[in-house]
Amino acid sequence: MDGAFASEELELALRHVSMPLEALRYDVTPVGLHYTLCHFDIPALDESAFRLRVVDRTLSMAQLQGLEKRTVRATLECAGNGRAKFQPRYPSMPWTQGGVSTADWTGVPLKRVLGAVSPRTAEVVFTGADRGFDSGVEHAFARSLPLEEAMRDDVLLAWEMNGQPLAPQHGAPLRLVVPGWFGMASVKWLSRIELLDRPFDGYQQATGYQYKKRAGEDGTPVRQMKVKSLIAPPGIADWYSGRRLVDAGPVTVTGRAWSAAPIKRVEFAVDGEWRDADLEEADRYAWRRWRCEWKAEPGEHELACRATDVEGTQPNQPDWNIGGMGNNALHRLRVTVR
Amino acid sequence: MDGAFASEELELALRHVSMPLEALRYDVTPVGLHYTLCHFDIPALDESAFRLRVVDRTLSMAQLQGLEKRTVRATLECAGNGRAKFQPRYPSMPWTQGGVSTADWTGVPLKRVLGAVSPRTAEVVFTGADRGFDSGVEHAFARSLPLEEAMRDDVLLAWEMNGQPLAPQHGAPLRLVVPGWFGMASVKWLSRIELLDRPFDGYQQATGYQYKKRAGEDGTPVRQMKVKSLIAPPGIADWYSGRRLVDAGPVTVTGRAWSAAPIKRVEFAVDGEWRDADLEEADRYAWRRWRCEWKAEPGEHELACRATDVEGTQPNQPDWNIGGMGNNALHRLRVTVR
Repeated sequence: MDGAFASEELELALRHVSMPLEALRYDVTPVGLHYTLCHFDIPALDESAFRLRVVDRTLSMAQLQGLEKRTVRATLECAGNGRAKFQPRYPSMPWTQGGVSTADWTGVPLKRVLGAVSPRTAEVVFTGADRGFDSGVEHAFARSLPLEEAMRDDVLLAWEMNGQPLAPQHGAPLRLVVPGWFGMASVKWLSRIELLDRPFDGYQQATGYQYKKRAGEDGTPVRQMKVKSLIAPPGIADWYSGRRLVDAGPVTVTGRAWSAAPIKRVEFAVDGEWRDADLEEADRYAWRRWRCEWKAEPGEHELACRATDVEGTQPNQPDWNIGGMGNNALHRLRVTVR
Repeated sequence: MDGAFASEELELALRHVSMPLEALRYDVTPVGLHYTLCHFDIPALDESAFRLRVVDRTLSMAQLQGLEKRTVRATLECAGNGRAKFQPRYPSMPWTQGGVSTADWTGVPLKRVLGAVSPRTAEVVFTGADRGFDSGVEHAFARSLPLEEAMRDDVLLAWEMNGQPLAPQHGAPLRLVVPGWFGMASVKWLSRIELLDRPFDGYQQATGYQYKKRAGEDGTPVRQMKVKSLIAPPGIADWYSGRRLVDAGPVTVTGRAWSAAPIKRVEFAVDGEWRDADLEEADRYAWRRWRCEWKAEPGEHELACRATDVEGTQPNQPDWNIGGMGNNALHRLRVTVR
């Protein structure tokens, strides 16, 4: 990583939870280790008084919880994960690798709550109870989905995470979960659902979360997660530098790979020599564990991993864009073997 | 805050959980919002295979959980909380304010497990399962307590936090909890307890966690928490700058105050005019909520709070020391009223 970080970037890093990479060991990330990104203050919502507004109706939590319930295991990744590795770097949350985690989300499929919609409906808009400013614009966090995405069976209005009631920072009492999409689509503290016959032009849809090469150009919207993988760092670490020390001998190196599309292959490299890793099965939208045996020999080594899905393989270098979105360059990790 | 932050400081800020200040609203901090500081990787421990070594005995979790159980509500603060506000700044975890939280800890009093000890015993040493390097020294995290502190009724070997099994990042399956002391005393992933007839000289006791004005001097050990208070920021925030905007009119400003000793008084100031805040009762080792009514008038304002215990009042400026320990300077917060 290059460049010193501004105090505003530090405060954002402190406000949000980045998953430590040893937590790649868990199929389902424990709640307090799951990454968080809260655009504004975490709202204080009273579940018993809470009402979800859906077009012209309102629903209490008890009414929602009386509907068909299902659980979906889904990996979510922040669209800005890896932002700190871009040069130049956009002034925002400076994620390195930890803006990704996996949870079991339980709730009612959105389509059961929406029911029949007008044939003129193009998008469904989701508004949270969190409110603040971004670039001088005051707004409540809000995002839209195209109708066909909103109607997928696995898009949930969720009130449980890992079998427990949602924690405040994860959107209690109710949030949207959109498996396969970057995390910004999974609106937390969900308070209102509306139907639109035109594209939604809210700040977080039309201005934020765009891939742009130049200021002022029309961006490409950030949507589904890209193919990506990470290494669970072997050995032990130094407190300040984070440098890793590994004992010589056989080491089982593991990690995770994920994408909006099915993962086809994961490769692992020591000092640039690539070979296939073994891949475990997982639910459709959950990360897959990979593993590779490595005979560690004393000295300095660079480990790396890269995943492939139907769209292609992770690039060697990040595809730069102004906002620092969607960095899916392969993961490299320097270790010392003793 | 002044000065740009190194990439190592950013990685530490990402690895650890800093409590967002709106979470001062909770008497008991939800698990995932409770601050964390993990010196090394979070160990992967299997509760069923876990054994605690106590001098010459070993105890399983089932054996520990069969002993007398009690719950203590305790505020814990990282000794380095506020380090980022020191100038010059020590290269370590760059906390601003959020390295403090409160939980309900359930476990067995340590004294029930220790039983009778030799009259020559001076200190009790606690060693965790977490291992790594600090300043070139490889070690497992370990700390000691003077025997009389270790024998307090409220010093626990805890396996539950807020009525739930301990989360991995909070020390599962077993940790020490020392109410009143800075967090480093509450050893996580506790695996061994030993008795010493002399002071413990482990790295985290004799080298780390010392107040020092100059390198090389004998330090003063970091022990109990100091008197301190924080403001729960009113109004709404800007995403990047964190600047707060408050609507004009009556505002109830609240916050928390804590210390190893009982809190006697909390004061609140707007633009330097101090007055007493109302103080709620709380358990002996838990933070106390304070509140003050403020008639907010348009313009720029500086809010501040300071607490007083039997030892004195929070200082205006931090008491600088090399390691950036124990910053208990009063909390200031700039807001814009519209």
